[in-house]
Amino acid sequence: MELRDIVEAGCHRDWETTTAASSESVRFAVIGLGWFTKRRALPALAASDRCDPTVLVSSSTEKAERLGAEFDAVEHGITYDAFHDGEAADAYDAVYVVTPNALHLEYVETAAQYGKHVLCEKPMERDSERAARLRDVAADGDIQLMIAYRMHTEPAVRRARELIASGVVGEPMSVRGTMSQRLLDRVNPDPDQWRLDEALAGGGALFDIGIYPLNTARFLLDADPVAVTGRTTSSHDAFDEVDETVSFTVAFDDDVTAHCFASHNARQSSEITVTGTAGEVSVRPAFFQDQTRQLHVSRGDGRATVALDRVDQMREEFDYFADRLRGEGAVVPDGDHGLVDMHAMEAVYEAAETDQWVTVEYE
Amino acid sequence: MELRDIVEAGCHRDWETTTAASSESVRFAVIGLGWFTKRRALPALAASDRCDPTVLVSSSTEKAERLGAEFDAVEHGITYDAFHDGEAADAYDAVYVVTPNALHLEYVETAAQYGKHVLCEKPMERDSERAARLRDVAADGDIQLMIAYRMHTEPAVRRARELIASGVVGEPMSVRGTMSQRLLDRVNPDPDQWRLDEALAGGGALFDIGIYPLNTARFLLDADPVAVTGRTTSSHDAFDEVDETVSFTVAFDDDVTAHCFASHNARQSSEITVTGTAGEVSVRPAFFQDQTRQLHVSRGDGRATVALDRVDQMREEFDYFADRLRGEGAVVPDGDHGLVDMHAMEAVYEAAETDQWVTVEYE
Repeated sequence: MELRDIVEAGCHRDWETTTAASSESVRFAVIGLGWFTKRRALPALAASDRCDPTVLVSSSTEKAERLGAEFDAVEHGITYDAFHDGEAADAYDAVYVVTPNALHLEYVETAAQYGKHVLCEKPMERDSERAARLRDVAADGDIQLMIAYRMHTEPAVRRARELIASGVVGEPMSVRGTMSQRLLDRVNPDPDQWRLDEALAGGGALFDIGIYPLNTARFLLDADPVAVTGRTTSSHDAFDEVDETVSFTVAFDDDVTAHCFASHNARQSSEITVTGTAGEVSVRPAFFQDQTRQLHVSRGDGRATVALDRVDQMREEFDYFADRLRGEGAVVPDGDHGLVDMHAMEAVYEAAETDQWVTVEYE
Repeated sequence: MELRDIVEAGCHRDWETTTAASSESVRFAVIGLGWFTKRRALPALAASDRCDPTVLVSSSTEKAERLGAEFDAVEHGITYDAFHDGEAADAYDAVYVVTPNALHLEYVETAAQYGKHVLCEKPMERDSERAARLRDVAADGDIQLMIAYRMHTEPAVRRARELIASGVVGEPMSVRGTMSQRLLDRVNPDPDQWRLDEALAGGGALFDIGIYPLNTARFLLDADPVAVTGRTTSSHDAFDEVDETVSFTVAFDDDVTAHCFASHNARQSSEITVTGTAGEVSVRPAFFQDQTRQLHVSRGDGRATVALDRVDQMREEFDYFADRLRGEGAVVPDGDHGLVDMHAMEAVYEAAETDQWVTVEYE
């Protein structure tokens, strides 16, 4: 594919294998009704013509029904226990798991039991052992499992990946990715939020946002980590259990390295750049949802910047998942893909503790 | 100082302590007449109203005189041996050493012997032991020694440093710096150039261009490296003695890290970014001379990009050095400063060999 064709594709959904009109809508049970669900996921599901949020699952029927009243498609508001008991199972085809990380497994177990496909938020679980069980549960239950890496359906990232695959940068050599925000000041001031609770989250800035540059580097390079090193730090009391800031390096095959930075205590930053022997591709900004993305391409003496229309990243992701369920395409990123990040992130923590490079071991 | 004042300063020479009109011109002997001298240094010295290139020193009188004929100020073209013998010593006040790295020491020894001040190209020498001797020779000879880090007088970098010192980014947390070029294709095709000869250069991409993000990170943070890790690689036969590509991380105090990438085999990249708790400052592009620099500042929800007039970085550097010699200001970056980079870069090589983090030891 030529550079011009790729750039001109813009926000084209190159992944579509079905049309919304010819496909039965995928009905979702949404598990976990935090701010991300309310502000991001439900509006996207409601706007989609491929998906419907028919069941909301929360700690109380009342909470689920109150939120459900805001969306026409919602038919049931039920409790977590009721979900496990199979209540309203006829009303949904798939489950979107957006609970604290350490609870993902149990909802996927129930989904598998009832034969419901799963879109599971990243990171997969609180540790790699549970993530592996989650993957196995889905396989044993013969359900489709996708890990919710929304960068895989972000148009600017997809175009960047196509440019790299087409040889625009030559041989990739270096990736730099950064994602940071002021979590407590700007996103969620609650010092008791589950993201700060090691037992529920499994990790801090690395698990929550460092996973973006890590996974997007993998996606852009189409490669998996070989070894990592890194450092973590925390300055606020709220981060006494998990890392507030992480700075890490991922070594891939062929001497390619990715330098990544993520922090819950830094000014918002959000970009990823791949430099190769012949060119450079950068998505800047890249990761946050309320940003108009620019794709920067340099090759030889030339350079171009392309502004892409802003899309609803969650809707792109939901629609992609629905297309995959209704069509013939493989559901990726799958559990094996997500598990690689779990192993890589655990290796970063080990590296930070030991001041070493740590080889990423896959089971 | 306020953000607006800093930005409005643009290319103002905030470092000036004397005026050109009131200062006697500094007469330079220029040692080493490679392409950098011809294309960058001599034109800058010739254009300066504070400096004059009066003596050119090369392998043959003929070569020195032939080049000297192109510049009105040049009075003598002499050999290296003649320089060591003190020929034309009355015709220069200072020496600009731009030979292969491993020869710096001997010319500084001679300069000290004749009481001539020295502007010495970076890296200081081929290893830290010789760099320390170079520093000591200058001190013992009571001459001024400046290491030629032109980023210290690059206006965009100086403004970035002032912004950081004024608190615009809050507490600095992460630095990302990258400098790459296609050396053999685009800069100098000679596979026998001294930069590729370990005995003459001491190191490869790290010593030649990795030193830019390394030293500029130090300059912007006003801090010195504590520990480093990194990886080096080479793909071309021409780089069988020295690293073609280096990817390294520098840990500073207060949990600040700098991720750096440099390559002689990658598309040109050139930028440095500091992300802090409250803001971000980026110079993009930063390091190459034929670039119009932009200073990018983000703080809170605001962001601004300032384009600076293009300056001749070499002239800024020469004029600064001349100002320091004629005025009262201390000559920095000095030998101690340059030696820190030597130790840090040797630690990067040790880290690359051992796959470890290496503490940077200073004598």
